Amino acid sequence: MDCGDRKLDILITGGTLLTMEPPAEIIEEPIIGIRDGKILFIDTSCHSSDHSREAHDVIDASGSLILPGLVNTHTHLPMVLFRGLADDVPLMTWLNDHIFPAEERFINRETVYSASLLAIAEMILSGTTTFCDGYFFEGSVARAVIASGIRGIVSQGFIDSPVPNRPDPTKHVVAAETFMKKWRDRSPLLTPALICHSPYICSPDTLKAIKAVSRDHGSLFQIHLAETREEVAILGERYGKKPVQYLQGLDLLDKDTVAAHCIWLEEDELDLLSQSEVKVAHTPESNMKLGAGVAPVPEMLRRGIDVGLGTDGCASNNNLDLFGEMGMCAKVHKVFSSDPTVMKAEEVVEMGTLGGARVLGMADRIGSIAPGKCADIVLVDMNRPHLTPLYRPFSHLVYCASGSDVVTSIIGGRVVMRDRRLLTIDLPSVMDEVRKIGDAIRHEKKD
Amino acid sequence: MDCGDRKLDILITGGTLLTMEPPAEIIEEPIIGIRDGKILFIDTSCHSSDHSREAHDVIDASGSLILPGLVNTHTHLPMVLFRGLADDVPLMTWLNDHIFPAEERFINRETVYSASLLAIAEMILSGTTTFCDGYFFEGSVARAVIASGIRGIVSQGFIDSPVPNRPDPTKHVVAAETFMKKWRDRSPLLTPALICHSPYICSPDTLKAIKAVSRDHGSLFQIHLAETREEVAILGERYGKKPVQYLQGLDLLDKDTVAAHCIWLEEDELDLLSQSEVKVAHTPESNMKLGAGVAPVPEMLRRGIDVGLGTDGCASNNNLDLFGEMGMCAKVHKVFSSDPTVMKAEEVVEMGTLGGARVLGMADRIGSIAPGKCADIVLVDMNRPHLTPLYRPFSHLVYCASGSDVVTSIIGGRVVMRDRRLLTIDLPSVMDEVRKIGDAIRHEKKD
Repeated sequence: MDCGDRKLDILITGGTLLTMEPPAEIIEEPIIGIRDGKILFIDTSCHSSDHSREAHDVIDASGSLILPGLVNTHTHLPMVLFRGLADDVPLMTWLNDHIFPAEERFINRETVYSASLLAIAEMILSGTTTFCDGYFFEGSVARAVIASGIRGIVSQGFIDSPVPNRPDPTKHVVAAETFMKKWRDRSPLLTPALICHSPYICSPDTLKAIKAVSRDHGSLFQIHLAETREEVAILGERYGKKPVQYLQGLDLLDKDTVAAHCIWLEEDELDLLSQSEVKVAHTPESNMKLGAGVAPVPEMLRRGIDVGLGTDGCASNNNLDLFGEMGMCAKVHKVFSSDPTVMKAEEVVEMGTLGGARVLGMADRIGSIAPGKCADIVLVDMNRPHLTPLYRPFSHLVYCASGSDVVTSIIGGRVVMRDRRLLTIDLPSVMDEVRKIGDAIRHEKKD
Repeated sequence: MDCGDRKLDILITGGTLLTMEPPAEIIEEPIIGIRDGKILFIDTSCHSSDHSREAHDVIDASGSLILPGLVNTHTHLPMVLFRGLADDVPLMTWLNDHIFPAEERFINRETVYSASLLAIAEMILSGTTTFCDGYFFEGSVARAVIASGIRGIVSQGFIDSPVPNRPDPTKHVVAAETFMKKWRDRSPLLTPALICHSPYICSPDTLKAIKAVSRDHGSLFQIHLAETREEVAILGERYGKKPVQYLQGLDLLDKDTVAAHCIWLEEDELDLLSQSEVKVAHTPESNMKLGAGVAPVPEMLRRGIDVGLGTDGCASNNNLDLFGEMGMCAKVHKVFSSDPTVMKAEEVVEMGTLGGARVLGMADRIGSIAPGKCADIVLVDMNRPHLTPLYRPFSHLVYCASGSDVVTSIIGGRVVMRDRRLLTIDLPSVMDEVRKIGDAIRHEKKD
C-alpha cells in the first residue's frame, strides 16, 4: 500500500470495521489511513507497523467497533435550554404555556450559541458527527459548528407568527438570502439551509418564497409535515387538501426537501413523496413522547423513500443520543406492525448512517467508510459488560449500546473526542453557561 | 440527631434526595445515616460535620440524585449468554431454531453461574439493586446473588416440555420443595421462589402443584401470562377460557402471584387481576422487540393493580438497563393511547422503585428511602451534558438518563459500586468466562 510522500494524519489499526458501504461489510482488523480530512485507504492485508511510522497519530481500535459517525437529520439544538422544563402535558399546553413563552424571553444570539455548544458536546459524546438543525438565530449555531469542529447543516427558520427574532413576513426573502450568503463557503464542515416551520403555521406565500431561495442556492429546504392529526384536519379545512398534496400544489416537493415526522400520511401521499424524491427525517422518540403517532416507515422504505433518523429538539425527546433513536426505531415498528422482522438491526444502523447522509444530500461525502470519503468515524468500545458476549455487531449497536459506549470520534479527519474526552469544547464552562440560563428560566417560571 | 453509641457504617451527605415515599418528596442536601444494613435516619436540619466523625464511610453526593435502587421485577439472568444471538426473526423461529437448541446444549450449573454474575454486574452498573429471576439451575443464580451482594428473588423454573435440567413432571413437587428448603434463610439478600413458564406450556396439574408448594412456603409464584395473541387462542381452544379465567379456575390468583407481560387481556380479566391482587411485571422493551404487543398498563393502574417494570431476559431486550425500560414505558403508552399525559415521569419512576417493591411483596423493606428500610440506594451523577440544565429530576431520570449515569450503589448497607467501580465482582474475569461460553455457542452455530 503506497501512502504517497507525505505522512498520514491518522492511522486507525485493529478493531472491527462496519463500512456501511452497501452491502454492509464487516472487516476484522482493518488499517485505515486518513489524510487531509479524507479516508485515504482501508487496508486489510498489511501489518499496522508498515504504516505507523508514516502517521502523525495512531489510534488503536482493538476491542472497538469502527463505524461511520451517526447522522442526526432533525434537531433544534438551542432547545437543550428547555430540556425537561415541561413534559407529560397536552401538546398545546406544552407549546403555549411553556415553550413559546420561554422562547420569547430567553432565545437570543448569546443563549443560542451556548446552548448549541452544549448540544454539540452531547452529540459528539454519543457518536453523532453530522446534524441538520433548524431554529432561529442559526448564525449562532453556525458559529458553534465552526468552534467545535462538528459537521452541521444549519437552517434559518421561518414562521408566520410572533416568535423571537420574528422576521417580518415581507422580509422573509431578504433574510433568507442574507443568511445563505453569509454562511456559505465559511467552512467545509458548515452548510447553510432554510426551514419553514410547517404548512399550517407558514403561509403559502412564505413557503413558496423560501423554497425559491433554497432552490436558487441549491440548499436543503426543511419542513415539519403531518406530525399530528390536528395538522391534517387544519389543512383539510383551510385548503381542502391532504398535507402532501397541498405542498405539491405549491411546488415544494423535490429531492432537496427534507420533511420531518411524516406520520399521518395516506398511501397516495407516500407515493407522491416517493415520486418526487422528497427525503424524510424520522423522529420516533419525539413522536412517541408527544403522543403524536408512529410514522409508516416500513411503507416508506418499501417505496424507496430515503429515511434518516433524528432526535428532534431536547424539549421533546429529551436527549440527543441517536443510539436511543436506533433502538426505538427498531422496536416501535415491530410492535406497531406486530412483526418482529421489520426494521432489522442492519437497516436501522443504515438509517442512522448512510441513510441519513442520503437524506441530507451528502451520501457522496459521508455516511460510510470508504476511500475518498470524509473521515467522519467513531469508535464504540465493545469491552463492556452490557455488550458481552458479542455475536453480531449490528444487533449490539441497536439493542444494547448507548451513546456512552462511544469512546473516540473523528470528524473531517480531526479527532474531536478521544477516550471520551472532548478536545474542541470546554465542557465545564459550557455547562456552567447553560446552567445560568436554566436558573434564569426556572426563576421566571416561579414568579 | 442522636445516632446512638455506635458509629454509623455509612453517611451520605449532600445531593438531591428522591425518597419515593408517597407523596414523592424531593429533599435538597439531606444527610442519610446507614447502620446494620438499614437506613437509620434522614436529617435535613443539621450539618454533615456533626455526623461525619461518627461514620466509617462518608459518601459525598453533591451534584447527584439519591434514589432508591431500581427494582427489576422480571429477568432471566442466564440468558445474557444469548444476547444478540438472533434478532429480527419470527418468535417461533427465534425460539425453536436459536434459543431452545442453545439452551439444551449450553445451559448448565457452571454457565448459569458465570452468566448470572455478568448479568448482576450489568444490573448494578445501571442502578438496579433488586431483581426477580426465573430460569433453570436457579441454585447457581442464588450463589451469584450471595457472591455479589445484590438483592435477588431466584425462582426455580417448571415447564412440561423437554428442556435442560428437565424435571420429570411427576417429580415437580419434590424438586420445588427441595429448592425452597435449600435456599431459604441462606442470606438476608436472597429469597427463593417458583416460576411456571406459562399456562400454555405447563399442564394444569403442574400449575396447581407448584402454586401449592409456593403457598406452603409463603413465596412468590411467577408465571408468563397473555404475552401473545397465539397464547390466548391456544388457551381458548384447549380449555375454552380466557387466560386469566383459566388461571382463576386453577386457584392460581392471589397477592403472591406475579404475572409477567399481561398484554392480551380484556376488561373483565383486568378486573379479576385487580380483585385477586395479582401483581404485574411490565416488560415494554421485550414486548416491543418481539412484536408481542403493548400491555394495557394505564388501565391496570386505574384499577389499582400493582405494576412493576422488568427487562425480561437479554435474548429479547437485549440489555438489563431499567432506565431504558422507564423511558420506553413512558413513551410507548403515550403514543399507544395518543395521550402525552399518561405515564408521567413521576409515575414511571415509582413503577421502577416502590411499585416494583410492591409487586415483589417487599415494599415494607425496599423501594423507598425511609428510616427503618433496607439501605438500597443509588447515586445518579447529574453533572453531565445530557442532563443539563436540570429543572425536574423525575423528568431527567425517565427522558434523559441512562444506566451509565449511575455512579454509586449501596445494597443492604454495603457499597457494591463506587464511582462506577464494582467492588464485589471481578468483572474482567467474569466477562472472559462468558466470552468463552459465547465462543463455544458461536462455533457450534457455524458447524
